[in-house]
Amino acid sequence: MKVVEFPQREDWTDIVKRPAIDTRKLSEFVAATLTEVRLKGDDAVRRFTSEFDAFEIDQLAVGEDEFVEAEAEVTEELKAALAVAKANIEKFHAAENSAPQRVETTPGVVCWKRSVPIDKVGLYIPAGSAPLFSTVLMLAIPARLAGCGEIVMCSPAGRDGKVNAATLYAAKLCGVTKVFKIGGTQAVAAMAYGTESVPAVYKIFGPGNQYVTEAKLQVMRDGISIDMPAGPSEVAVLADDTCVPAFVAADLLSQAEHGQDSQVILVTNSREVIDGVLDEISRQVELLPRRETARAALANSTAILVSTLDEGLDLLNEYAAEHLILAVENAEQIAERVTNGGSIFIGNYSCESAGDYASGTNHTLPTNGAARAFSGVSTTSFMKTITYQKLSEDGIRNLGSVIETMAAAEGLEAHRNAVVIRREYLG
Amino acid sequence: MKVVEFPQREDWTDIVKRPAIDTRKLSEFVAATLTEVRLKGDDAVRRFTSEFDAFEIDQLAVGEDEFVEAEAEVTEELKAALAVAKANIEKFHAAENSAPQRVETTPGVVCWKRSVPIDKVGLYIPAGSAPLFSTVLMLAIPARLAGCGEIVMCSPAGRDGKVNAATLYAAKLCGVTKVFKIGGTQAVAAMAYGTESVPAVYKIFGPGNQYVTEAKLQVMRDGISIDMPAGPSEVAVLADDTCVPAFVAADLLSQAEHGQDSQVILVTNSREVIDGVLDEISRQVELLPRRETARAALANSTAILVSTLDEGLDLLNEYAAEHLILAVENAEQIAERVTNGGSIFIGNYSCESAGDYASGTNHTLPTNGAARAFSGVSTTSFMKTITYQKLSEDGIRNLGSVIETMAAAEGLEAHRNAVVIRREYLG
Repeated sequence: MKVVEFPQREDWTDIVKRPAIDTRKLSEFVAATLTEVRLKGDDAVRRFTSEFDAFEIDQLAVGEDEFVEAEAEVTEELKAALAVAKANIEKFHAAENSAPQRVETTPGVVCWKRSVPIDKVGLYIPAGSAPLFSTVLMLAIPARLAGCGEIVMCSPAGRDGKVNAATLYAAKLCGVTKVFKIGGTQAVAAMAYGTESVPAVYKIFGPGNQYVTEAKLQVMRDGISIDMPAGPSEVAVLADDTCVPAFVAADLLSQAEHGQDSQVILVTNSREVIDGVLDEISRQVELLPRRETARAALANSTAILVSTLDEGLDLLNEYAAEHLILAVENAEQIAERVTNGGSIFIGNYSCESAGDYASGTNHTLPTNGAARAFSGVSTTSFMKTITYQKLSEDGIRNLGSVIETMAAAEGLEAHRNAVVIRREYLG
Repeated sequence: MKVVEFPQREDWTDIVKRPAIDTRKLSEFVAATLTEVRLKGDDAVRRFTSEFDAFEIDQLAVGEDEFVEAEAEVTEELKAALAVAKANIEKFHAAENSAPQRVETTPGVVCWKRSVPIDKVGLYIPAGSAPLFSTVLMLAIPARLAGCGEIVMCSPAGRDGKVNAATLYAAKLCGVTKVFKIGGTQAVAAMAYGTESVPAVYKIFGPGNQYVTEAKLQVMRDGISIDMPAGPSEVAVLADDTCVPAFVAADLLSQAEHGQDSQVILVTNSREVIDGVLDEISRQVELLPRRETARAALANSTAILVSTLDEGLDLLNEYAAEHLILAVENAEQIAERVTNGGSIFIGNYSCESAGDYASGTNHTLPTNGAARAFSGVSTTSFMKTITYQKLSEDGIRNLGSVIETMAAAEGLEAHRNAVVIRREYLG
């Protein structure tokens, strides 16, 4: 971990610069794959699975027998843990609905809106170095709570032709409608355009590598919505001398083990905290099975000493971390001043892994600075809003001249006429 | 207008197929333009303005004197109309905030979320065949209500080097921070990456042609958010024999005058309604200044006779219209059963132009079927959500084993260790 002391504000951007992710170079390849699946359906999906994932697949859908087998494979301990996590995620994600509010904007003109589930959604669950069954919970639970009619999931099978048992168990537990053994670009293509086996969906969620991300961005051209452009995971910690360096080190490492491209940032007003955390990292990293990955990620990461916590918070608001841990005194007050960040962890006992698995908040969060404009996934991500207006005879009488004046000024005579004809009819 | 009687369900998709919009072919050109602006800033913007918009520009920002001049040019009648429209839009868009709700998901684990304005946003206002000052209201008002710090606007100037006076007046009225005389791809690029003159923003809103839409989709790769992929405008009308054919004709024409690629759809259970509406269209279209455009759009449009209104509603839910007018008995009950649509107009006096200008709802809406997954612009479009969690010592004691079990099952030992180390510390 690099250490930077008292940097100037103008240098902040460079110091916390994320590794560049350029999916442009994949653009043509991804476009060609999407087109093939759009035109040739299941055949193309099978061919790409054979080419890229190196195994032959006949039946793309996961069969009932495979779910039964998966359930038998999952330990009772994990089942119990998943039940608690599910209950917590449901509690937090349920608290979102609000009744439509009618607003009479002008006498006789009533407007309101209504949230409606997106009828068909697709979830992509990667299966790279770790089986991410927790992501199934984070996507399928809000989809179900939102009321989506069809919840399709794609996840690549291993060389044995099977999807991870816990992933399948979680899918069943959380009400996923159909699961397909498809990964990568071809999974996004199948869900966007539909094939003989896979239903076309209207919005695609979930993390993935650069190919998956580029594919998600490209299908937006065809009106398919996506949750967000996903990048490598990252955590930032703001710490003062009330932190426990061993905890901070453990949190930084829990992010660093995700991948070599993960980024971790420590910001503190205490040189002792930096020293203590670095010591603890050296000690703890040795004990990790994924220590090589963690070490590589730490090599890209930075500890920054700032003069004051306020300055540190400014820096972190510029950085816009996916996960931000506040291991400082009065963490909750400081939390209110966070303007850019995905999910915030308050105080010494709120480790990032709590949010990753079971606190109840969603772990599908904006990375790579996207937290400046994007929100994490929530139940509303699986819904859209329809607006309504109802004008009575009085409404058109009261508002008509305003509409006519504006339409005329925009040179849109037919827009104006739609009002004129009604006002004349009313006499 | 084509007339189709009693089509089979399996033919619906083809009958209401929208003209294909393929922005892929612009992809390379747009990418090159974006890169140039990213690397060369204002110089590239000036060069593209000269090349594509055919005029030379020195000062990109609109100066204070130009706002003063614009205000003098706008008639008092239009100013009064804009004031009413602004008040209505504010009333409807203000009714969105809700207090954060704290949920204790497990004893000692409290989660909540907070909506925060996106600090810097960009609005694109096209200036093609009509000056769309109404779009300034629809974007700047919710941006201001959301609390965005910087509201940047780009709109191309005419050959005289001026932006439309009403557009500038509306920008000032609604609190736009800075206005730039830039159009097309280079405007999107300037707002996404920033130049010497134009501040970089985090989210870009607004309609535009295929180049603007493709540019918006491409800057998402760099974590810039966008409102939605915009396509040609469209209206659908569901009518029964309680409708007034002259009104329906006027509404269809008000959409058709937008552009040759606009699409209008009439769905009804009455052959008399089709005949009456077609008669009225023939009569009314003659009186329009934009009759050539309207005629071209109508040539791509369809009137569909269905057996029942229920069937018609099913068809329209599949179609997912940007604007849907319900000129039927019990329109309000039927409105509750709309599952896909941008903005809904209820009853004979709710013309689309009311929503376009002044009812209070937003007119920036999902086109091209995107209403299946996208919402229209609202105040929340200018905000993002940050989630929070706070675990007490009891919280980590109560939830710790669940997190440990799940982390271990995902093979993420450092995630597990972040909990273990805290539980051991507590003894």
